[in-house]
Amino acid sequence: MSGLSMRNPERRIETNPFDVDAWNLLLREHQSRPIDQEREFYESLVNQFPNSGRYWRAYIEHELRSKNYENAEKLFQRCLKITLNIDLWKCYIHYVADTKGQLEQFRETMANAYDFALQNIGMDAQSHVIYTEYIAFLKKVPAVGQYAENQRITAVRRVYQKALATPMHNLDAIWADYTAYEKAINMTLAEKLIAERGKDYQNARRVEKDLQTMTRGLNRQAVSVPPKGTASEAKQVELWKKLIAWEKTNPLQTEEYGQFARRVVYTYEQALLCLGYYPDIWYEAAMFLQEASQTLDEKGDVKLAAALKQETISLYERAITGLMKESKLLYFAYADFQEEHKQFEAVKKIYDRLLEIEHINPTLTYVQLMRFIRRTEGPITARLVFKRAREDKRTGYQVYVAAAQLEYNCMKDEKVAIRVFQLGLKKYENEPEFGLAYANFLSNLNEDNNTRVVFERILTSAKLPSDKSIRIWDRFLDFESDVGDLASILKVEKRRKAAYEDAQKELQMNHSMLVIDRYKFMDLMPCSGEQLRLIGYNALKGTENNTGAPTTNTKVLP
Amino acid sequence: MSGLSMRNPERRIETNPFDVDAWNLLLREHQSRPIDQEREFYESLVNQFPNSGRYWRAYIEHELRSKNYENAEKLFQRCLKITLNIDLWKCYIHYVADTKGQLEQFRETMANAYDFALQNIGMDAQSHVIYTEYIAFLKKVPAVGQYAENQRITAVRRVYQKALATPMHNLDAIWADYTAYEKAINMTLAEKLIAERGKDYQNARRVEKDLQTMTRGLNRQAVSVPPKGTASEAKQVELWKKLIAWEKTNPLQTEEYGQFARRVVYTYEQALLCLGYYPDIWYEAAMFLQEASQTLDEKGDVKLAAALKQETISLYERAITGLMKESKLLYFAYADFQEEHKQFEAVKKIYDRLLEIEHINPTLTYVQLMRFIRRTEGPITARLVFKRAREDKRTGYQVYVAAAQLEYNCMKDEKVAIRVFQLGLKKYENEPEFGLAYANFLSNLNEDNNTRVVFERILTSAKLPSDKSIRIWDRFLDFESDVGDLASILKVEKRRKAAYEDAQKELQMNHSMLVIDRYKFMDLMPCSGEQLRLIGYNALKGTENNTGAPTTNTKVLP
Repeated sequence: MSGLSMRNPERRIETNPFDVDAWNLLLREHQSRPIDQEREFYESLVNQFPNSGRYWRAYIEHELRSKNYENAEKLFQRCLKITLNIDLWKCYIHYVADTKGQLEQFRETMANAYDFALQNIGMDAQSHVIYTEYIAFLKKVPAVGQYAENQRITAVRRVYQKALATPMHNLDAIWADYTAYEKAINMTLAEKLIAERGKDYQNARRVEKDLQTMTRGLNRQAVSVPPKGTASEAKQVELWKKLIAWEKTNPLQTEEYGQFARRVVYTYEQALLCLGYYPDIWYEAAMFLQEASQTLDEKGDVKLAAALKQETISLYERAITGLMKESKLLYFAYADFQEEHKQFEAVKKIYDRLLEIEHINPTLTYVQLMRFIRRTEGPITARLVFKRAREDKRTGYQVYVAAAQLEYNCMKDEKVAIRVFQLGLKKYENEPEFGLAYANFLSNLNEDNNTRVVFERILTSAKLPSDKSIRIWDRFLDFESDVGDLASILKVEKRRKAAYEDAQKELQMNHSMLVIDRYKFMDLMPCSGEQLRLIGYNALKGTENNTGAPTTNTKVLP
Repeated sequence: MSGLSMRNPERRIETNPFDVDAWNLLLREHQSRPIDQEREFYESLVNQFPNSGRYWRAYIEHELRSKNYENAEKLFQRCLKITLNIDLWKCYIHYVADTKGQLEQFRETMANAYDFALQNIGMDAQSHVIYTEYIAFLKKVPAVGQYAENQRITAVRRVYQKALATPMHNLDAIWADYTAYEKAINMTLAEKLIAERGKDYQNARRVEKDLQTMTRGLNRQAVSVPPKGTASEAKQVELWKKLIAWEKTNPLQTEEYGQFARRVVYTYEQALLCLGYYPDIWYEAAMFLQEASQTLDEKGDVKLAAALKQETISLYERAITGLMKESKLLYFAYADFQEEHKQFEAVKKIYDRLLEIEHINPTLTYVQLMRFIRRTEGPITARLVFKRAREDKRTGYQVYVAAAQLEYNCMKDEKVAIRVFQLGLKKYENEPEFGLAYANFLSNLNEDNNTRVVFERILTSAKLPSDKSIRIWDRFLDFESDVGDLASILKVEKRRKAAYEDAQKELQMNHSMLVIDRYKFMDLMPCSGEQLRLIGYNALKGTENNTGAPTTNTKVLP
């Protein structure tokens, strides 16, 4: 046991709030104490791991042991729908069975609970217990008279039918059970019914075998924690992605698109229980829901289409109020989804929610918001976003570049664009990227003299750290090579060399090879790739791993 | 012995014409045969290794053994001045001594030969033998009468003086020799003279010790071959560069800038005998000569300044007619040197010589020539270079980009620039970089619709390989993000994703994370650097080694 795990779990959690082992140790301690003193602990537990079925269940079972049924009920309301964990749902079924027995409509309540569970997790490979219990429950329902008897048989058959079409464990036993059941009711009819069900059963059985192969090695009990980049984490991600990809091949070969989509979505939900800190899984799940909704819409299934659209929104909401609450990616994707559906006010609220989080750099959000407003209300209104961004102290220089681009590209007004850059330069004189963007903008406009002025201003700014200035010198040299005379070129080159030497003092390199930059053009170099490497050019330019020329012209401003 | 070296040397040289060991084996064979049959071999040897003193010497000595003095004389003329190898020069001295003995002016010829040698390699640490021989020769010159006697003493003293001021081996013996010589002439005067010389001698002695340390591990016998990138090659390069850097610190602490410069130049020359395939050493040597010439000019030493300027030209000529005959870098540097000195016709000839080499891609040369003509004769004349480049079948698309830039940046005429791009597009439809440059150019001009047309044209061109198209899709997405509506953005993004999937079929990657590009702006990313890595974005974009955002806005067109 490592030194770390010898320390007491509270201390360990202070260091790393995602230390699952330490939480488990704590949980074991707290489970034996009276619930009245432990709610604070449980709340911090489910707050830290809001999508862990296991921790919710521990909390609820503790309440149940003390017969605090009302508390348990409230906890179920908080977690059931967002935590499709089979054990948690079994716990719920047992809770209903144990607590509602006294009620007048007990049977109806119970059947509703079973239906509710099957609707939500009835696709799970481990949901067979719920099916079998449900069937057993239905069989035991007293039925007086032929009519009631028939109704009971129909109900039982309906559950059997659903169970036998589902790829899950223990199918063979359910099948044997079912055939016996039918034969006991009516030997003659049984043959026909069994033959009908048999197809589904064989199909589900085949898929269940494949599913077992696909889920080998998958740890479904894993608790979502921020990934550390370990190999075992990567393996789990790979296995989940494989499983999802497999479900997308429609292994059940169902012709019902809705059923197919539901299974894929269920697999995403299961993956998110373990990989809740992976924005890509959330994003892909949302994309799948969106596409599925669209497909269903095209197929004419308007109702399910609308339901999946609603689920997309729920998923996004769950993401940005839960584990993904700081993921700009998911806010942006959510906003775009709403924009596609012309819910422009909803879009604004999404951006606002992200902007309200004090410690998140809002710059990119303002840029996206500005673009959104430009698209939906036009560039003039988009200026208001720029104004709002300027007044926000957290905003970075990139907003000024985006605003200048907007003026130039959308308002087609270079004068205003230049004013925006001038405004920014006062504030971000020590941001080389900003200066570079400004100089690039001016040189694209053929404003040669102004370009030189900006280069000189940012390069002579005392605030510019020397190691940051070298990229600007590179660009200045390119500029002079394009339009300057040889004396200007040589002068800039000489100063650039000094800047490099200053920035790379510790590297003890020979900087005369920076002359390469004077002679290169696009991907054409005045030396072979091998020579560039040998004479140390790549090291100078910090492109040691590339063999050939550095990429140029990758992005253009404005 | 490896399998390779077991094969006969001719075969090995066929495989690798720079197999020095094989050449040495051959040389041993050929040395024992009559020279009349061997000239072809020797010519191929010195052709392959034109700056190897050892091979020249072997050739010459073979001629000398057969008393073919005229041939030897011609060979010396070919190699002496460009091969400052001490053993070759010793051989030369012995050749003069052996062959000119019959001549009437033998003594004068001999003294001239010694002076010529000392002038060229008298700075070499191993040149002591030549000094001592010269002194011995002078001492033996018959002198009749006091005047002649005094003249002889002056001559001997002059050589001693030069020798004792030179950091070289065996200085102590020469010093002992010198003091004995002076004392034998005049005991009284000796003391004063010895004291005077003593300062130079002590200084040279000190520097010689340092020199020994500096040259430890340096293989001065190495023959110049194209580097293979081995560690031992790198070590030699490092040692030579250290030695040069040390000489640049003026270890002799001389106040004569000319003497200092000469020593540095001599060290460069020695380095080039071994590292003749390193363009950076040639370039730095030329730069040093240029700067030294300028410094001397500023100091008023017009004569030496002019000499060093001439030496610069010789060095460039030696480079581009010798081992560097395919190095565009040295042609361009040479051209710039001549341009600085307003030798515009000479510049044109340099570019022409490079363009005449059939197998060298002339594109970059045309670009540089175009820029040169733009600087010296204006952009209208520069158009003629573009015309010439267009007529050259070897020319690549980059010339069209450069010409369009010229029209836009220097003629300030965007219409002509667009025509140039249109002309190029017909020819280079399958060059993604060209299409990209064109699209960038148009989008910078706010020609939104035309930009879209060009993007569509190059992206739907059947000639464009899918793996090359993805960078264009990236740029197209950037463009639409700047100016398009959401539908256009989503449409481009979807097609871009398909292009990536097509190009990266074998990678089995999930391409949905390309959405990152839709949301990034400059260096702002919608995910943390760690997340980008974990969700495979960096792998998708081929920037696996970067932790953060990929660099944008590095270069701008036009």
